[in-house]
Amino acid sequence: MHTSNKLASKKLAEASLESLYRIFTVPEAPDSTLGQIDQSISQNLAGFLQQHIVAAERDLADIERDFADPHIPEQPTFVSDQIQFVLDKLVAQSVHISAPSFVGHMTSALPYFMLPLSRIMMALNQNLVKVETSKAFTPMERQVIGMVHHLIYQQNDDFYQRWMHDRGHALGSFCSGGTIANLTALWAARNNVLAPQGDFAGLGQDGLLAGMQHYGYKGMAVLVSERGHYSLGKAADILGIGRRSLIGIETDANNKIRTDLLARKCDELKQQNIKVMAIVGIVGTSETGNVDPLDAMADIAAERGIHFHVDSAWGGPTLFSDKYRSLLKGIERADSVTLDAHKQLYVPMGAGICVFRNPETLSSVEHHAEYIIRKGSKDLGSHTVEGSRPGMAILVHSGLQIIGRQGYELLIDQGIEKARAFADMIKANPDFELISEPELNILTYRYAPADVQQALLAAPVNLRKEVNELLNGLTKRLQKTQRGLGRSFVSRTRLNPVKYDRDPVIVFRAVLANPLTTLDILTDMLAEQQEIADSPAIQELTGQIRQRLRGTEHHRE
Amino acid sequence: MHTSNKLASKKLAEASLESLYRIFTVPEAPDSTLGQIDQSISQNLAGFLQQHIVAAERDLADIERDFADPHIPEQPTFVSDQIQFVLDKLVAQSVHISAPSFVGHMTSALPYFMLPLSRIMMALNQNLVKVETSKAFTPMERQVIGMVHHLIYQQNDDFYQRWMHDRGHALGSFCSGGTIANLTALWAARNNVLAPQGDFAGLGQDGLLAGMQHYGYKGMAVLVSERGHYSLGKAADILGIGRRSLIGIETDANNKIRTDLLARKCDELKQQNIKVMAIVGIVGTSETGNVDPLDAMADIAAERGIHFHVDSAWGGPTLFSDKYRSLLKGIERADSVTLDAHKQLYVPMGAGICVFRNPETLSSVEHHAEYIIRKGSKDLGSHTVEGSRPGMAILVHSGLQIIGRQGYELLIDQGIEKARAFADMIKANPDFELISEPELNILTYRYAPADVQQALLAAPVNLRKEVNELLNGLTKRLQKTQRGLGRSFVSRTRLNPVKYDRDPVIVFRAVLANPLTTLDILTDMLAEQQEIADSPAIQELTGQIRQRLRGTEHHRE
Repeated sequence: MHTSNKLASKKLAEASLESLYRIFTVPEAPDSTLGQIDQSISQNLAGFLQQHIVAAERDLADIERDFADPHIPEQPTFVSDQIQFVLDKLVAQSVHISAPSFVGHMTSALPYFMLPLSRIMMALNQNLVKVETSKAFTPMERQVIGMVHHLIYQQNDDFYQRWMHDRGHALGSFCSGGTIANLTALWAARNNVLAPQGDFAGLGQDGLLAGMQHYGYKGMAVLVSERGHYSLGKAADILGIGRRSLIGIETDANNKIRTDLLARKCDELKQQNIKVMAIVGIVGTSETGNVDPLDAMADIAAERGIHFHVDSAWGGPTLFSDKYRSLLKGIERADSVTLDAHKQLYVPMGAGICVFRNPETLSSVEHHAEYIIRKGSKDLGSHTVEGSRPGMAILVHSGLQIIGRQGYELLIDQGIEKARAFADMIKANPDFELISEPELNILTYRYAPADVQQALLAAPVNLRKEVNELLNGLTKRLQKTQRGLGRSFVSRTRLNPVKYDRDPVIVFRAVLANPLTTLDILTDMLAEQQEIADSPAIQELTGQIRQRLRGTEHHRE
Repeated sequence: MHTSNKLASKKLAEASLESLYRIFTVPEAPDSTLGQIDQSISQNLAGFLQQHIVAAERDLADIERDFADPHIPEQPTFVSDQIQFVLDKLVAQSVHISAPSFVGHMTSALPYFMLPLSRIMMALNQNLVKVETSKAFTPMERQVIGMVHHLIYQQNDDFYQRWMHDRGHALGSFCSGGTIANLTALWAARNNVLAPQGDFAGLGQDGLLAGMQHYGYKGMAVLVSERGHYSLGKAADILGIGRRSLIGIETDANNKIRTDLLARKCDELKQQNIKVMAIVGIVGTSETGNVDPLDAMADIAAERGIHFHVDSAWGGPTLFSDKYRSLLKGIERADSVTLDAHKQLYVPMGAGICVFRNPETLSSVEHHAEYIIRKGSKDLGSHTVEGSRPGMAILVHSGLQIIGRQGYELLIDQGIEKARAFADMIKANPDFELISEPELNILTYRYAPADVQQALLAAPVNLRKEVNELLNGLTKRLQKTQRGLGRSFVSRTRLNPVKYDRDPVIVFRAVLANPLTTLDILTDMLAEQQEIADSPAIQELTGQIRQRLRGTEHHRE
């Protein structure tokens, strides 16, 4: 009995093992649920998303009920059952990122070829940490880094011939996104500031404390405009200098860093014996898409021997445009530059790049191990924050080839021009107020009828603040209502416009990078906002605001 | 003339824009190059790889010539041309990671369903940094983190009910891989050690220097066995404590940390006023797959109030196995645990997880911003090193459902048992020497005929060192030759076996995680190594080694 039980259980295990092998060796049948989805995505992506993503918003707490079980199921689930679950519970309740009427995200529609190319990438499953697990993917990624380097720094052919595939150096670091790219740049900058000297083996070896003691610094700092991306604060935390050492410099009325204040702060810190390890310029602030005066910043950095980093995660691809490239003048003087491929290079999520003008800069973070990224190897892992990484560079490589400089130029130009047209549309509409003019393809605005706008500018400080606070509530509500309806989407953020003496002002934020977004779609979107604003609930709020403004006028009379 | 030129160029731009729209709106035709590849991968992945990956090795310098141009092409390239290039130059020269005879990598074959599922992920292109760009993917990822948490910590249902979807907390952090997972764990540990107190706002705000001064520490340290993964050294660099503060503790003959030395070092450092911010245990060292004595390490950490992190990037999934789970006893006492999904959860590259026993631990790295990951939101980005991230968790979720606990158990069990069988095969072969016994599914060995092994053990120290050095050259050459032939692949690494009094010994490293690797394949692989070893070139080297060993015997006579 016992033996036969054992035998039965052995047979069962063998049967299970057999069926387990099948999932590794037998493809999904074309007429299976998964096979059908696969074809439907391949043949009509927009249709698939339209059909399966439910437009109307479901409450998050409600969605969570479908993902409440912390237990890994004991028994295998049929592929078809799981896929049905994925369709009904996950796809249905995902966000329609690529919809042309969803202009609040920094990701947009993807070129069709990206999908089958991604399949090649997934099927090969290379690991870019080392040549041994990536082979040709390593030189390919080095070329992609080289191409982005050339886009920015335009060095001559000899330079790339010398450095692009050099085993001891890296012109940049390919990573999962702008956050890691910024971290990489500041990591390299920090380690170069506290470089080996005499009996100090360098920060990388001996640590921050020993480094600061060796060089006699009282502190370290990174300077960026108050519109700097939140990843910089996180980097300051991770790198050990602390968030308070990331110093936000005030911006002007156009959300650009005030270089007079930047220079002054540099000198102040120097007097306090606090070492500025990097100045960061922004090309396309996340909130308003503005570009810092890079040339002037480069001057300030150069005069003081400070690492100049440019975060062009969003706006870097503007360099493709003959017409608008000059907005970025000075970027070629940066010591390091971040650029996100999953934003305006139209690559799927998970691809960022940081390039360095000088091939030596990134050497300050170089590292090796025994079984991997050995010294003298060409393994890319010796200069990256991440270890194992997928071959996403294949998507960037193909994007650059298939779309080409001119193709990207068209994408950039039409985005900027669409943003200007949308800004004109808003300015022409008396019920809306443009808060930031688009410099690239991002703009912000809010619902504020002309009479309210006028009264607000004339109102005393306290009333203005109060009304702006009321308008903020209204904007928030309007944005959420529109999102909930599921037809269109703008994001929202909070700014401190100079116009209102830096009162916090919540705004709609439109990002116009999706080539499929037409002016008609934007007209409809604005009309929908108007319609929501005209609803009794919102009109009651607007009425209260008007009354509040009038009430004070009475007082003042 | 001028006007008509302008008009012509406008028309041209419109035509280009039109063709550009097409890549966003018109799917690849099924009979296009890309369409055909897509089908071929879907229907017969192994066949596709076999057909397109060239077996014989091409020189890397030669491959680099295909990726030498740093210029982004001005004009668009036809999709079909680029895809042909990808096939000929990239796919052909990639590494056949999933081949059953390639047992040197930590990535293996993928279940078929992962490919169409990846397409769904890519098509949706969600960004997990915030709910607004990921919706249901956020609770789904939280569930995946919860499931892995439960796998390790087995808390009760109330616990997960309370914490899994809590807006103020995260039970873990999903990321691109084990390196970031380890960095996340050590980041949290570091910030908890130098937590806010009195007028010190915490390391995250005030920085490492202020923190160490506030708490009066002379230094910080992380302790791990000398077999610790290189990502820990990198983390020590990035986090600012410096690589020298990552202290490697000697291992015993089985590559396990010597807990006596660990405890002693902790106490030594305390006396020197150096704060140990974490002790790291390893489950499956990269080189030998051994498991540290976690329970004893947990005791040491608990007695001293030190954060105990376990790096089970490789071996974590052993917990699925009823038979082998006990090897990991004590892991449930860890404060944080790293586990790579792209290793033994059989998910494509780019999926790692770090979980924390206590829901409060990760709060030390919590961060917020204005337009994103706002305070009180459930945005996952508030507790991650990375910012924008793809929805890879969908692949882990589906893997856990479709394969189930029992399925993963089978995968784990067969890997361990195959490794033992292969070890027996090596021990039975007089020409090979097993260097490390497989505890999980990794083992190391080298070519060293029985007489050489014997003479080596009897040899005086200097000769032994010299011969081991010669054998190292031989092993390296043998491994490279086999890799170059392209039929099979083992990796190599360098160990310091106690058997040889810690002489550096280069070894073959076999990782037996691919369910499609049979014992026959391993037999063939060993036979191929034997064949290479029997070649005149290698036999000459072996002859020299024998002579060298005999020469000294003469001397000693």
